[in-house]
Amino acid sequence: MKRTLAIETPQKIGQEILIKGWVNARRDHGKITFIDLRDRSGILQVVFIGNEEVKKLRQEWVLEIEGNVKARPENMVNPDLTTGFVEVEAKKLKVLAEAKELPFDMGGETLKVELPTMLDYRGLTLRHPKVQAVFKIQEEIVNSFRQVLMGLDFTEFQAPTIVPVATEGGAEIFPIKYFDHTAYLGQSPQLYKQMMVGVFERVFAVARAYRAEPSVTTRHICEYISLDAEIGFIDSYQEIMETVERVIRGIFSGLDKNCSQELALFKAKLPKLSEKIPQIKMREVQEIIFKKIGRDNRQEPDLMPDDEKEICKWALEEKGSELVFVTHYPTKKRPFYTYPDPEDPEYTLSFDLLGRGLEWVTGGQRINDYQKLLSNIIARGNKPEDFKLYLQAFEYGMPPEGGFALGAERITMQILGLNNIREASLFPRDMERIDFRLSKPKTTSGNKKK
Amino acid sequence: MKRTLAIETPQKIGQEILIKGWVNARRDHGKITFIDLRDRSGILQVVFIGNEEVKKLRQEWVLEIEGNVKARPENMVNPDLTTGFVEVEAKKLKVLAEAKELPFDMGGETLKVELPTMLDYRGLTLRHPKVQAVFKIQEEIVNSFRQVLMGLDFTEFQAPTIVPVATEGGAEIFPIKYFDHTAYLGQSPQLYKQMMVGVFERVFAVARAYRAEPSVTTRHICEYISLDAEIGFIDSYQEIMETVERVIRGIFSGLDKNCSQELALFKAKLPKLSEKIPQIKMREVQEIIFKKIGRDNRQEPDLMPDDEKEICKWALEEKGSELVFVTHYPTKKRPFYTYPDPEDPEYTLSFDLLGRGLEWVTGGQRINDYQKLLSNIIARGNKPEDFKLYLQAFEYGMPPEGGFALGAERITMQILGLNNIREASLFPRDMERIDFRLSKPKTTSGNKKK
Repeated sequence: MKRTLAIETPQKIGQEILIKGWVNARRDHGKITFIDLRDRSGILQVVFIGNEEVKKLRQEWVLEIEGNVKARPENMVNPDLTTGFVEVEAKKLKVLAEAKELPFDMGGETLKVELPTMLDYRGLTLRHPKVQAVFKIQEEIVNSFRQVLMGLDFTEFQAPTIVPVATEGGAEIFPIKYFDHTAYLGQSPQLYKQMMVGVFERVFAVARAYRAEPSVTTRHICEYISLDAEIGFIDSYQEIMETVERVIRGIFSGLDKNCSQELALFKAKLPKLSEKIPQIKMREVQEIIFKKIGRDNRQEPDLMPDDEKEICKWALEEKGSELVFVTHYPTKKRPFYTYPDPEDPEYTLSFDLLGRGLEWVTGGQRINDYQKLLSNIIARGNKPEDFKLYLQAFEYGMPPEGGFALGAERITMQILGLNNIREASLFPRDMERIDFRLSKPKTTSGNKKK
Repeated sequence: MKRTLAIETPQKIGQEILIKGWVNARRDHGKITFIDLRDRSGILQVVFIGNEEVKKLRQEWVLEIEGNVKARPENMVNPDLTTGFVEVEAKKLKVLAEAKELPFDMGGETLKVELPTMLDYRGLTLRHPKVQAVFKIQEEIVNSFRQVLMGLDFTEFQAPTIVPVATEGGAEIFPIKYFDHTAYLGQSPQLYKQMMVGVFERVFAVARAYRAEPSVTTRHICEYISLDAEIGFIDSYQEIMETVERVIRGIFSGLDKNCSQELALFKAKLPKLSEKIPQIKMREVQEIIFKKIGRDNRQEPDLMPDDEKEICKWALEEKGSELVFVTHYPTKKRPFYTYPDPEDPEYTLSFDLLGRGLEWVTGGQRINDYQKLLSNIIARGNKPEDFKLYLQAFEYGMPPEGGFALGAERITMQILGLNNIREASLFPRDMERIDFRLSKPKTTSGNKKK
């Protein structure tokens, strides 16, 4: 018999079917036992009548069951479940795999364990429907990003992760023992995506980025998914923000269409958007906040975290948008390749998209003139030979270009209102953990292996 | 004026348009100068009449041109080019960026430089239309892999690349200085995709894999794109091979549909397939070859490279297929998680898909019983605590499962008939190169940074 998924059962009332899945819960009522069977499509109620064997089943056991699909009696209907008005009356049971007794209760709408425990048992806790949902949502975010850009004639490329030099400064970068050399884990695919503009004009990558973040915060992990795009032949930096807006709207509509159930588990509402996402220059942001609440950060060279929060509030109140572009960050505060505003070169044609108090996207126009890039690299104390391939791409003709990047975990966290970015990473890495906690025993084993 | 792409010009005869792109070639004929302009869609002929400024244009300069689209005189039609029966008569020229004189000729159907030069100038050589084509084809391979599996209800996940332990043996693995610990670059997402079966049943990843290959061969690079899939609740290992076959057919039909021009540049023909890809057990392969050509490798514990080539020949001659599954590799030669054939436990329910003399895909059923996995890990001299999260996924109930993996660069190389896998990697990393050659100066700078 071909397997039927939980979600297909409402269409099979009266039929004999084969179902497979995990025991999500077991409830005994004398001679009758209910099993909530979980498969990739959802949860289904299975009824065993007068079956003693079923009493040994425990959570997470893997089963194969033959039985009949029946409509539930009206007083037993569960309107919250897609399969809530049917159940399967079991005829035959086969145990495919047993499971050890669970270390904590996996039932309930929310998994009630602390984050360290959730991560110590990641192979188990990822199975909880609400934890699963985080990664269905993340899959949709990545896929919508891809679909929007493919629709705009972008080419997807695979960015390398091993890089030869610590081009963005050595402090927060991981060194690799690379045969007789030292190599590094790339902090972003930035230089590669810019080179790729010379090849395909419009490119994007679902890339890996690495930061040796020396502190434990709720917003940083050491390995993350960077959604990177770069566009050649732009007329102005506005074109980049228009593309960002399309991507963001594409992500929201993808989530709305394909993940409404998952969003509902978190009671998450997609951010409210005005007809066009508002734009404000950084200096204006500081001015607005000074006028609004009297906090005077007008001399600060960068936007303070508190101001990011405040301007998000303002944008919602004044512009009806939970997202807001802040533009024209100071040249000194942005990377060497950032394009200065020709009308005021102390500021750049760069932007951050802020949402719900945090940065969602960062981007801007890049310098595409070889000589300017070269002198910027030198002026910031870098060695041009460390940027050899990158500079080459500009030496041999690069159109006006710019791009942007967003962290998939960050966006997931912000949309769902998670408290910690680790909840938005399948297997989060930080200074204290790679799968398991990096305590004393790890150091010893690390040394032995050297 | 909105930009028109080269490929759109045949629909715009008689219209004034704006085009942008790179100078692919310049030909002077007295008062008339022809520029082949290259953009992301292709190459377009632009004619300048009595324009002296155009004589200074060089290859790879970036231009913006306004002009009129005209049908070419009949004797000037180039039937090999999509835009070959039109040309643009230029009215206005703007140079967006200049380019240094090229170090070698970028013209011609094939780029005529040796591989090291091609890689030393990767920022430039990737722009050659035939080199570009390699990566349009690779994009299509990755995308078809994804589309087929999404159609089969797989969930895409993002596999981590930093791993805590050198689980597959320490020799060919890159160590990372991870704060006060040693971590490693994962040799494959194998353990993670198996864990994810417990979560989503059917999963795939476009992952990064790393091998510290200590020799320079034409078939190995140190960082590669691993297309990985894993399927839970399988009835038999045959189901895995059926999925592989669907993926391969999906890739071929994607290439056929979307990349026929790119394939034509390489005169590449997609491998011939019979109605079903043939399957042969490894011992039978050795037997067939012994009978066919007298080479006696029947006692060898693994398939020899020469035998892989020979059986591919045989499959084409006897079965009309350029691809062939070889199954039942010896248990000793496969990883600890490989499922032994219950009828003959010295052999496994594993397979390789061979094509054109090389391995394309490797896969098989996995052991899903916790106790067996545990004892295998111990029997092979590994420490169970190094596999903590992995084992956990099996301890808490894992259905029968299996999966497969293919290297995107390998498949690209095999389909196009490239001589070296480095040509199928945008920025290939090997023991001698990361973007630039890792010679003396690199070691010094590496030491300084420590």
